[in-house]
Amino acid sequence: MQAQFLPDFAKAGGLITCVTVDATDGHVLMVAYMNEEAFQLTLQTGKMHYWSRSRSSLWKKGESSGNMQELVEMRVDCDVDAVVVRVHQSGPACHEGYRSCFYRSVAEDGSLQINAEQLMTPEQMYGRTR
Amino acid sequence: MQAQFLPDFAKAGGLITCVTVDATDGHVLMVAYMNEEAFQLTLQTGKMHYWSRSRSSLWKKGESSGNMQELVEMRVDCDVDAVVVRVHQSGPACHEGYRSCFYRSVAEDGSLQINAEQLMTPEQMYGRTR
Repeated sequence: MQAQFLPDFAKAGGLITCVTVDATDGHVLMVAYMNEEAFQLTLQTGKMHYWSRSRSSLWKKGESSGNMQELVEMRVDCDVDAVVVRVHQSGPACHEGYRSCFYRSVAEDGSLQINAEQLMTPEQMYGRTR
Repeated sequence: MQAQFLPDFAKAGGLITCVTVDATDGHVLMVAYMNEEAFQLTLQTGKMHYWSRSRSSLWKKGESSGNMQELVEMRVDCDVDAVVVRVHQSGPACHEGYRSCFYRSVAEDGSLQINAEQLMTPEQMYGRTR
């Protein structure tokens, strides 16, 4: 598919924000960023592509872990600078082996507490310690 | 509440990304950004505060529209540079009068199509055209 609109990439130095949710129940899996190439490749291939801010490189989700994401629907916000994508997720979305990257919450005392089950270890996902 | 951890504000020029979801059903309402002050004020007051990138100013959600957000839970991602907040939302979250800012999706032909009901007009929310 070819988009008939252009997101506002200028606002944040060439990137839009992408919230990736599980198409089955809307659970937020991760937050990542897309440059124009990642955005177009995602729509063209139906597989989620992102821009890695830490590695400064295009990143096809699941390329190293095998845990790909198939695009089901892309929603666009009022300012056209963020999208919510509903995906079919294979395996854990998080590189730490949790279903979601948001596997911790802020507890009453202000500390971070794990609130989810680790489905795999990073070693199981990547065959090495990251 | 005082956080016992510090998010990674350095990664994106002093800001972390915040995905705001309805506490009742997890529906994504909006994406916004927080500097350290907005982050601390949110935890201290229990009301959502953000940093407006377009206005370059602190922004207490609902200050002009009345549609405040009460914090129920804050979840933190693996990289500590994004949060998901579950909130009780008063009225529409979007300044266009929709429940969610993500009121459009990309249709089969690549165009943007509205997929939600407009609950209020911007004039009803702000008393003027924005």
